[in-house]
Amino acid sequence: MTHTQTHKIAILGASGYTGAELVRLIATHPNMEIVALSADRKAGMAMGDVFPHLRHLDLPKLVTIDDIDFSQVDLAFAALPHGLSQALVRDLPESVKVVDLGADFRLRDPAEYTKWYGNDHVATELQKTAVYGLTEFYREDIKGARLVAGTGCNAATVQFALRPLISAGLIDLDNIICDLKNGVSGAGRSLKENMLFAERSTDVTGYSQGGKHRHLGEFDQEFSLLAGRKVEIVFTPHLVPVNRGILATCYLKGDAQAVHAELARVYASEPFVVVLPFGQMPGMGNVTGSNFCHIGVCADRVSGRLLVVSTLDNLCKGSSGQALQNANLMLGEDETTGLMLAPVFP
Amino acid sequence: MTHTQTHKIAILGASGYTGAELVRLIATHPNMEIVALSADRKAGMAMGDVFPHLRHLDLPKLVTIDDIDFSQVDLAFAALPHGLSQALVRDLPESVKVVDLGADFRLRDPAEYTKWYGNDHVATELQKTAVYGLTEFYREDIKGARLVAGTGCNAATVQFALRPLISAGLIDLDNIICDLKNGVSGAGRSLKENMLFAERSTDVTGYSQGGKHRHLGEFDQEFSLLAGRKVEIVFTPHLVPVNRGILATCYLKGDAQAVHAELARVYASEPFVVVLPFGQMPGMGNVTGSNFCHIGVCADRVSGRLLVVSTLDNLCKGSSGQALQNANLMLGEDETTGLMLAPVFP
Amino acid sequence: MTHTQTHKIAILGASGYTGAELVRLIATHPNMEIVALSADRKAGMAMGDVFPHLRHLDLPKLVTIDDIDFSQVDLAFAALPHGLSQALVRDLPESVKVVDLGADFRLRDPAEYTKWYGNDHVATELQKTAVYGLTEFYREDIKGARLVAGTGCNAATVQFALRPLISAGLIDLDNIICDLKNGVSGAGRSLKENMLFAERSTDVTGYSQGGKHRHLGEFDQEFSLLAGRKVEIVFTPHLVPVNRGILATCYLKGDAQAVHAELARVYASEPFVVVLPFGQMPGMGNVTGSNFCHIGVCADRVSGRLLVVSTLDNLCKGSSGQALQNANLMLGEDETTGLMLAPVFP
Amino acid sequence: MTHTQTHKIAILGASGYTGAELVRLIATHPNMEIVALSADRKAGMAMGDVFPHLRHLDLPKLVTIDDIDFSQVDLAFAALPHGLSQALVRDLPESVKVVDLGADFRLRDPAEYTKWYGNDHVATELQKTAVYGLTEFYREDIKGARLVAGTGCNAATVQFALRPLISAGLIDLDNIICDLKNGVSGAGRSLKENMLFAERSTDVTGYSQGGKHRHLGEFDQEFSLLAGRKVEIVFTPHLVPVNRGILATCYLKGDAQAVHAELARVYASEPFVVVLPFGQMPGMGNVTGSNFCHIGVCADRVSGRLLVVSTLDNLCKGSSGQALQNANLMLGEDETTGLMLAPVFP
Repeated sequence: MTHTQTHKIAILGASGYTGAELVRLIATHPNMEIVALSADRKAGMAMGDVFPHLRHLDLPKLVTIDDIDFSQVDLAFAALPHGLSQALVRDLPESVKVVDLGADFRLRDPAEYTKWYGNDHVATELQKTAVYGLTEFYREDIKGARLVAGTGCNAATVQFALRPLISAGLIDLDNIICDLKNGVSGAGRSLKENMLFAERSTDVTGYSQGGKHRHLGEFDQEFSLLAGRKVEIVFTPHLVPVNRGILATCYLKGDAQAVHAELARVYASEPFVVVLPFGQMPGMGNVTGSNFCHIGVCADRVSGRLLVVSTLDNLCKGSSGQALQNANLMLGEDETTGLMLAPVFP
Repeated sequence: MTHTQTHKIAILGASGYTGAELVRLIATHPNMEIVALSADRKAGMAMGDVFPHLRHLDLPKLVTIDDIDFSQVDLAFAALPHGLSQALVRDLPESVKVVDLGADFRLRDPAEYTKWYGNDHVATELQKTAVYGLTEFYREDIKGARLVAGTGCNAATVQFALRPLISAGLIDLDNIICDLKNGVSGAGRSLKENMLFAERSTDVTGYSQGGKHRHLGEFDQEFSLLAGRKVEIVFTPHLVPVNRGILATCYLKGDAQAVHAELARVYASEPFVVVLPFGQMPGMGNVTGSNFCHIGVCADRVSGRLLVVSTLDNLCKGSSGQALQNANLMLGEDETTGLMLAPVFP
Repeated sequence: MTHTQTHKIAILGASGYTGAELVRLIATHPNMEIVALSADRKAGMAMGDVFPHLRHLDLPKLVTIDDIDFSQVDLAFAALPHGLSQALVRDLPESVKVVDLGADFRLRDPAEYTKWYGNDHVATELQKTAVYGLTEFYREDIKGARLVAGTGCNAATVQFALRPLISAGLIDLDNIICDLKNGVSGAGRSLKENMLFAERSTDVTGYSQGGKHRHLGEFDQEFSLLAGRKVEIVFTPHLVPVNRGILATCYLKGDAQAVHAELARVYASEPFVVVLPFGQMPGMGNVTGSNFCHIGVCADRVSGRLLVVSTLDNLCKGSSGQALQNANLMLGEDETTGLMLAPVFP
Repeated sequence: MTHTQTHKIAILGASGYTGAELVRLIATHPNMEIVALSADRKAGMAMGDVFPHLRHLDLPKLVTIDDIDFSQVDLAFAALPHGLSQALVRDLPESVKVVDLGADFRLRDPAEYTKWYGNDHVATELQKTAVYGLTEFYREDIKGARLVAGTGCNAATVQFALRPLISAGLIDLDNIICDLKNGVSGAGRSLKENMLFAERSTDVTGYSQGGKHRHLGEFDQEFSLLAGRKVEIVFTPHLVPVNRGILATCYLKGDAQAVHAELARVYASEPFVVVLPFGQMPGMGNVTGSNFCHIGVCADRVSGRLLVVSTLDNLCKGSSGQALQNANLMLGEDETTGLMLAPVFP
């Protein structure tokens, strides 16, 4: 490479887990420099005091968003609680590219947004133009986008398993059941009794059961678009006592061999999606700390039924790694730069 | 009770987890005395050296089965690897009642036994007379039985959720999908790389996927009997990094309210099965160390679909607790004696 | 016992972990009935909604302390944050016996209380008469006490290891170093970032390092009293990712064999303290969920140095189990009633 | 860099955790290529089948050591059980540089080797010339070495805390007590009952207590050399339920401020050793997956006593990361190449 440019990066909401994960990844990115880190309640603190695992890095202090000079920023990652990105992104200078890790721009239909998030969207014009950030399926749009909406981490995991199958008409659209096992970091750093170590460490429990999880809005949008008809999946996430990882067990009707062949074909050239040999199934612990997604397929003993299992690290491929992958594309970098870290095992 | 008798108990296979759990439970049982403990490879050792958590108890030394004087035994618990109970139980004196915690006598059809376990049964006469040990549904038969076959732990968990619904004709028999999250103690104390702490602690992975798990033999037998037709469920267990517990998420078609009402009705008088209010769902961590099973029901957003979730402690209600419950009945004791221990939380 | 009385019990502060542990233990106590449960912020809730693992029990609703009719209470357990018991206990009817699980009455010297807890004691008369609740060493005083002050959980663990050695003059009083590994439930149910599962599950870290932990007040009081001179130990607790348990590694100077012999002698007739054979060392996981304390002794290769390791369950023997043991004595029950539950393993 | 050379690397013993960790690290190293991977019992398997987290990498198949063409190898990492490296390294072509991760070449005195490892050394000539691989203190020797002996992981952790203090004469050499908390991956992938998830996950227990741990040979050698007199420390490791990490709590006598100042001075320019501000103490979870070592110092309330706590990831900085750091130096690379990965948190 004879001529490289250093991209100036801001991370908004840097005191949460996805913010820290962005810093971890960008730390070894050769062409990105973090010029601003924001965190409203922790403004004034050093990042190394908020996250001691980042002590060895030379990072700017945490500031409030208002204190950032966005004229010096090429791209901002917004890792904010949902609802906060809308007005913020609307008011940023047009010169700043944005990857939003939150939920604000995932749904294109304002009515759907209101249905799932309970309030009206305040930047509906932007909402229409935001590109859905599932890189492997929106790559070309992402390259030219100013605003990319990161997907939900559950939404990413299940879509890697199902999108090619819906597109190819290989599965019964009325019998899609996805049971997820979710590492707890997906809940973020918020303080709730049931997220304490003592209460989580020996427990497994479902949440948002019965179809109440907001990521269903993304599934409805994307799968119905792919299928050309309304598709409603059954989807239940469960908290398991692991920090990072989502494992989605998808119960489907179709031909298992054909399903495997199609997944293998679609992902053959993808750097981050690994389809296992037929009948081999992935484990959550094999993608920890990485941007990889592993997928396995097997037939069930009940004729005409099959399982597709996909797994990824919710903080990385499901969130911050995906965001960096998109940012690379938006900035003209190679998509994999800074992201080829092998998983940490054991 | 003005006159109580002390029952003399042998535990065969006392060096495994279910053996240790039996000792734990019997330790506070007022009318049972452990007179013999066997463990072939550890014969000669003190139980407190094999399981230091039992050091405070005054227990007989571990011996080989051959060294037990069965004329002094009222009831034997057999906690042996599958295949070993058949000849053993056949050759015991008729005076010894037996609760088998293994798989040898769960399936009444020799052909089914061979299909799932890979070898012929050597005590087919006994196999026919053994009572299936799911106490809540075979209570009267168990009271008079000489040989009770403890159920598989997964089999127990799912049957508590589904038996009443199949009996009452409340669910679509061709759309039963059961996704289980399983604590690792179900795998016993055997030495495998993938059961090491380092490999399990950050991993979640399915096993016996696609309908290969042996407990399916029990489901097929019991559910087909209840339904009066062949019933084949989809069933996938997953290892989660928890010591004890099984949580079964059952995806069903039917009317959620009717399902809840039926479960509540059936279990209203059961001391160990707790049906939660409609829409409340159980957590695995709420039954740890106890003989209780918690069940929850909710409707799904997809019309006509519902979830039933049941959870229990695989070593207790799923195995040794169930065994003691059955032994109590076989010996004329109150069914709950020694079993009302509250769960340990956190 | 030909004539048993049912003691009426109140638990003040029942929505914390020690409160729930008291309920768990009392649930199988034959002669105690819980007549009142208080929890200020959760008053009005059912105990089974606050702690679903207790759903199977028939318990009174949570109320505020003011709503309890103490004329119907024989004994109250106070499981309140430190500082709240002082005025409360002072104002209770004299007829109510009290076991305080908090820190308010552990230190007899008002100046020491102020030094470690930062405020003046408001019930100094009571403070003088409270009996220090380390049952094995204050048994006779406890039998006749109206108010017993439960010990700190760390304080209990270390005192079981060291009291007999200080009394017998077997160790160098100026070289006592106690390194503790602590399960997280000792921190209670309070909401702090560093107690979230995601932050604790892969971390081990010391706290109150350098001699800042409040339990040092108890050590100073008790050890100086035993030795007849000022004794200051070095004591550092560390959080480990386990729910229950404290393991204290005590680095001492003395003769290891003599130390072991003395511990074995002192605890020979104690039902809950188990001294292992010389050279065998205990593990935290062998006392989980029980009222037992295991102690081991070995010599170090460095001449004249030795290790004493003691371990117990902080919520049980270190807190609620100890409290019940004391309550049994105060109410004329056998000391072990309701407390002989074997540890839960695995 | 206009001209870079790709170093050809062999990993001997690639089916263990340190072997896998080397692959993980080298995967992003720009100037190293893995040309051979050996594993006797798993020869013939693909690395991605032994370690599915490495599936995405294009790696040579596992072979036996005899099948490696060492004329094509610049440097070999030997990650073998202790005892196996001696003859192996002796018989390798002189042209192959070697970093041994095992214990075979750590002790320079054959008698000490025999004392701690129970057998005579078979390559005593090599033993004398091997350079002790604690990079920060043997850097210049390592640059020119053909054979570097990686340190024990415990030995590394404690030496980072103590070497500068012994060198500077700042601590009492007769009162050094080091209590370690150790992640389980240090035990490797060997199959033992007490390393099963079910037995480790709720347990903390010491091992090799009383001065039996083999890493004491390294402490004795290095500390006595530094001090110019015999130094014997008290050292007790404890297994905690964490995969990666060692946290060493060192109880010392000396002046805490002077100790902190010296550590800060010595490590000021070291890229991988971070000394925290005085009074701030490190957590094991803040170095997971990285090559960093964090050190904290505080005074104790007991006059003249202090704590130094150091922590690192046993598989990385304590083993494979250190090995790569040394290999970089031996091959003329920048010492930090491939090692600046930030820790993974949470």
